[in-house]
Amino acid sequence: MSAPKAEAGKGFVSFVSSGPGDPDLLTVKAVKRLGAAEAILFDDLSSGPILSHANPDADLVGVGKRAGRPSPSQDHVSKLLVEYAEAGQHVVRLKSGDAGVFGRLEEELTALRAAGIAYEIIPGVTAASAAAAAAGIPLTRRMTARRLQFITGHGVTGALPEDLNMAALADGEATTVVYMGKRTFATLAEKLLEAGLPADTHALVATGVSTPDQELFCHTVGDLPAVLRAMETTAPVLILYGPLADSDVSLEEHADR
Amino acid sequence: MSAPKAEAGKGFVSFVSSGPGDPDLLTVKAVKRLGAAEAILFDDLSSGPILSHANPDADLVGVGKRAGRPSPSQDHVSKLLVEYAEAGQHVVRLKSGDAGVFGRLEEELTALRAAGIAYEIIPGVTAASAAAAAAGIPLTRRMTARRLQFITGHGVTGALPEDLNMAALADGEATTVVYMGKRTFATLAEKLLEAGLPADTHALVATGVSTPDQELFCHTVGDLPAVLRAMETTAPVLILYGPLADSDVSLEEHADR
Repeated sequence: MSAPKAEAGKGFVSFVSSGPGDPDLLTVKAVKRLGAAEAILFDDLSSGPILSHANPDADLVGVGKRAGRPSPSQDHVSKLLVEYAEAGQHVVRLKSGDAGVFGRLEEELTALRAAGIAYEIIPGVTAASAAAAAAGIPLTRRMTARRLQFITGHGVTGALPEDLNMAALADGEATTVVYMGKRTFATLAEKLLEAGLPADTHALVATGVSTPDQELFCHTVGDLPAVLRAMETTAPVLILYGPLADSDVSLEEHADR
Repeated sequence: MSAPKAEAGKGFVSFVSSGPGDPDLLTVKAVKRLGAAEAILFDDLSSGPILSHANPDADLVGVGKRAGRPSPSQDHVSKLLVEYAEAGQHVVRLKSGDAGVFGRLEEELTALRAAGIAYEIIPGVTAASAAAAAAGIPLTRRMTARRLQFITGHGVTGALPEDLNMAALADGEATTVVYMGKRTFATLAEKLLEAGLPADTHALVATGVSTPDQELFCHTVGDLPAVLRAMETTAPVLILYGPLADSDVSLEEHADR
């Protein structure tokens, strides 16, 4: 049940979820692993103040991937990870949010397994949880939002994934969270309205969640595409829609309009 | 954007997500809030070693709710929360997992708002993230599991919620996580198979995730109802099903069969 043991002479990789951005939203375990690491491979989104927890003697290796910018290929990142581990080091692979949610974790696990390198995964706070918390709302609601779903707006090719399950996504009784949704939400919104989701369904846009740059905006699914077009941020945008709140909760108080 | 300020003479409530059970899976922020609290209202599932982080001078108030056992009503918990805060205290309301996911957070937020008491929500690691991490798998897979969804098997009446969106739940290209699913999964499985989900779809059962009692078992949606009937645990059971893993990932290594 515990993490597999490292073979003699081979390193060990801890996949560490960095949470949404605030270094205080790392877990205690993540802080411990960062403090003990000999090498830390990090993305743009899991860097900055989070690396203040790093062992000062660790090699810090940026393997930045960020939507819309040139960046090392996934193959290159996996290869680097294997190289550092094969040098016998305790490597931390830092992943933003929860490593298991749209983190392309599987590609790196597969590379480690092919190389016979042991690993563990430290779970973390996913951006959806942090965005809802910042807005003062729950992600699920007992009577009105009993299903919670996460999709990515950024598929394998960078476009909205094809073959979306519209019966799932246009369900007005679910809270839906779209990760990396800025560029493709207009297309999704069109499909949602066609599939019967009311245009006045609540939508919350969040950027820089839990960081000093945090911005939350309340809109509707119908008016969101125009709002997103006007946003100039290059940071990842998280979109939540569904029966997010009613007059009893504080969505409007916490978010800008 | 920050937490609302407390009114003079009124307390303040921090809803603190305790994570899945391992006190090392609390966030740094959660640990800080527990250390500063004057009163801590906790559930059965967010107690034990997690309370080792509590301010030794804090009032510890158990408001245990656990499936299948008599427990204080939600109204009673909300009332108690308001009373402690109205006494001017900094109250921590500890909630297992991520407070916003099937945590009945909304009822307590509503009570605080009615009483004019300020609050903040500290997000945390939800059980689904911890279970997948323990099994050595991601929750999403780039080509095969591009949608992730959470439901509860324990609706308002304790039964499986009615009006389930079967097109969403029987989707073989999504990872589905059923919280508190032990008692009702047999009913759900029947509906899933009727709706076309293959009986050999991978299913992972997890109890006591991240605690010394952790157990993970690999099965299929078809054989899971019999397995669950034979399980004697009273701890909450988390069920994951979908295209969880292929031969390249380590589901089978990490879990018992």
